[in-house]
Amino acid sequence: MTQAVADHLLAQKDAILERLKALLRLPSVSTDPAYAAGMAAARDFLLERLRALGLSQVQALEAGGHPALYGEWLGAPGRPTLLIYGHYDVQPPDPLEQWVSPPFEPTIREGRLYARGASDVKGSTTIAVETVGAFLALGGACPVNIKFFLEGEEESGSPSLRPLLAKYRRLLAADAVLSADGGRASTTIPTLNTGARGLCKLEINLRAAAKDMHSGRYGGAVRNALHEMARLVATLHDEQGRIRVAGFDADATPLTPRDRADAAELAADEAAFYASSGALPHGDPAYSVRERLTLRPTIDVNGLWGGYTGAGSKTVIPAEAHAKITARLVPGQDPARARDCLVAHLRAHCPPGVELRFSPPGAGAPASTLPEGHPLLAAAEEVVRATTGRAPARARIGGTLPITGIFQEELGIDTLMFGFAMPDEDVHAPNEFFRLSSLEEGLRAWPLLLSRLGQEEAARFAPWKRPIPA
Amino acid sequence: MTQAVADHLLAQKDAILERLKALLRLPSVSTDPAYAAGMAAARDFLLERLRALGLSQVQALEAGGHPALYGEWLGAPGRPTLLIYGHYDVQPPDPLEQWVSPPFEPTIREGRLYARGASDVKGSTTIAVETVGAFLALGGACPVNIKFFLEGEEESGSPSLRPLLAKYRRLLAADAVLSADGGRASTTIPTLNTGARGLCKLEINLRAAAKDMHSGRYGGAVRNALHEMARLVATLHDEQGRIRVAGFDADATPLTPRDRADAAELAADEAAFYASSGALPHGDPAYSVRERLTLRPTIDVNGLWGGYTGAGSKTVIPAEAHAKITARLVPGQDPARARDCLVAHLRAHCPPGVELRFSPPGAGAPASTLPEGHPLLAAAEEVVRATTGRAPARARIGGTLPITGIFQEELGIDTLMFGFAMPDEDVHAPNEFFRLSSLEEGLRAWPLLLSRLGQEEAARFAPWKRPIPA
Repeated sequence: MTQAVADHLLAQKDAILERLKALLRLPSVSTDPAYAAGMAAARDFLLERLRALGLSQVQALEAGGHPALYGEWLGAPGRPTLLIYGHYDVQPPDPLEQWVSPPFEPTIREGRLYARGASDVKGSTTIAVETVGAFLALGGACPVNIKFFLEGEEESGSPSLRPLLAKYRRLLAADAVLSADGGRASTTIPTLNTGARGLCKLEINLRAAAKDMHSGRYGGAVRNALHEMARLVATLHDEQGRIRVAGFDADATPLTPRDRADAAELAADEAAFYASSGALPHGDPAYSVRERLTLRPTIDVNGLWGGYTGAGSKTVIPAEAHAKITARLVPGQDPARARDCLVAHLRAHCPPGVELRFSPPGAGAPASTLPEGHPLLAAAEEVVRATTGRAPARARIGGTLPITGIFQEELGIDTLMFGFAMPDEDVHAPNEFFRLSSLEEGLRAWPLLLSRLGQEEAARFAPWKRPIPA
Repeated sequence: MTQAVADHLLAQKDAILERLKALLRLPSVSTDPAYAAGMAAARDFLLERLRALGLSQVQALEAGGHPALYGEWLGAPGRPTLLIYGHYDVQPPDPLEQWVSPPFEPTIREGRLYARGASDVKGSTTIAVETVGAFLALGGACPVNIKFFLEGEEESGSPSLRPLLAKYRRLLAADAVLSADGGRASTTIPTLNTGARGLCKLEINLRAAAKDMHSGRYGGAVRNALHEMARLVATLHDEQGRIRVAGFDADATPLTPRDRADAAELAADEAAFYASSGALPHGDPAYSVRERLTLRPTIDVNGLWGGYTGAGSKTVIPAEAHAKITARLVPGQDPARARDCLVAHLRAHCPPGVELRFSPPGAGAPASTLPEGHPLLAAAEEVVRATTGRAPARARIGGTLPITGIFQEELGIDTLMFGFAMPDEDVHAPNEFFRLSSLEEGLRAWPLLLSRLGQEEAARFAPWKRPIPA
């Protein structure tokens, strides 16, 4: 049946491409109210499509912002229930004048489909929808239970995602998330996205005097808040950029030989990487650049200010200084504990009398990862091996993917990123494109993935699920 | 004659006090156009007064801003010509509700004359004017040649002072400046103001990348401009606050045993000093607090900023960071050379590739000082000794007095600060006052000072005069 489904999808490739192009013509920009009609049109298009597949409970889910779209097929008792995630909104198309063909007129050039949203993420969303449709059309059944959840605010920072999941927690209950978002890490070798770094935040308010002072009356005999802040910031790293905060990365899971081999395989063109931003190479020399960017924690001061910052000069000795810090976290690190280590370090290095106040502990995000032994990981690796002829390199993302953490927290389940975008497809920029070859690869891989997961019993996922709020 | 003049002044004390009160009733606030009438009234009052003394060339000097007032008596050929400096403008009286008696209704309570401008500096200006008037009234002559120059913008930062001196350079040519501004440093022991610290400025623009970067994509492998700026700022001082910029204070004139003895005598109540600002004691432990505040150079970061400083957080790795620095300089330090040392230090401590740009070299101000052997210093010390019975402690000011540098640069001459204000008289604040005892002390001292300087030949000042612009 799996092979028959894949053959069917490839035979229907042109029709599928036309449906994708129809979706791409709908300007569903979530960040700009001027595109409200495009958003509504994309919703109508997809709701109609989900109904046409034969799904039940097809509906828009509302929690204040742009609705998410839902549809389910629950005809595989005992098999896993997979929440398939995608999003129908896209980035704004500006600057328009830099597009070779208009952003909402999908155009094929040299095997690439150019349009806003083609790569991010209507292309991969279409692969998922069409795959489920083909199973139901050919055999009247899917190997797994399916719940589509297509978000409408991903490009706006997902402000309603958490409320939506909380509001519809029962409807959305599942064993795992398959995401059509989160693409491939390389254009040349098969990769599997196995996680992302977490995040914790800290704002520092430092006070070294009750009021700003005149440097002619106080200069030379008092502490200067900016000097103190600079000394504190300078203690966070050594000269090579190694973190020097005691305990901060003590719980970080050490890199395995496999981690390091995968990172070596995925090593980017470092010269091009640095040239693109004009940045200067830095960081812990015990790790490669790829490892530093994706597998190791970081601490960065994102903003710092104090004293007089206007035109000209003012001979003030500032009483206060402020800094905003974020840290990227890796598996093993607890966001609250990482923040505590930062606070303890800063207090330990702060001279007596200098007052430190910190922002209240916020909602940090732990790193997300598919651990060894997770059924999603095993299934995905098998599928990539079967479709590409080789085992994928595991790639973790240096950034933080909010949705994986939110799905864990609100629904208690893990997410497999199984999108088919590639890293050079100019997402969020003019001339975004999606490779037609990726469409074909996705249409081969997704049927295999659903079939492979359908070999598991639903209970197989139980040990990986976390308790969720009542 | 000197004694006769002093006796005459003291006999006329009540009339002098009435004239001072009349001047204090005129609300000559230079910073607020709403007080234009008060400014004009104060000008008219003083011009009339200068004419009444018998001065020549009495006039308002204009260079765009509030005029300065001028009047001369040049009947002492061969004797020094002294430019007597004072100012007729005052600070705004706000907050009005905190005044016990209204700011422009001079009121005597417990030997103190309360009014805006009483201490700063209509009181001491009146002493100077009345002294010259008494010499001319009693003997028809003054021991020295006199040129009054009464500024109208001192409380506005003297924007027209330099243009005025340049425009009227020939009219204002003199051998030295006697300033009625610049008061006494102690309420308990006789002091003589012998100088002030200088200033140099530097703005640092640091760039560590071509553009801001996302910490999820770059974090861990690139330099962060704020980290680099913090490291640079942290190198300026050691942990105790000692300056660590090579060469910066190499030319600073070492403190003499007399300097240190004077500073010890003038040592303030340090507990009260720190309590008043909530500041934390800091700085080079080889020097006392008073020495650090007045006799040693400083480097202070007055402002620092970079990255995201708005609400919430932004995971940016800033490409740029900025800092504003000023340094207070002591005698011997050249402002340009001090700035060069700072620049060289920052460059030496900046990692390769990190780009530093500096603000263009501006007009720094060297420290001003009356050096040993200067006729103004000798005369003033004799006068204080004669009127108080003991040698004054020499006090230098920790701030920078722009007028002394401007007089040096534009007229090539030194300034003796010989005002009779005391440091506790709430200048620039509600309930400013001037001690009636200070009025009396000034009326005893100024005749002595003019007489003492009249014993010198004008040529005695020649070695201390600097060439001035053509």
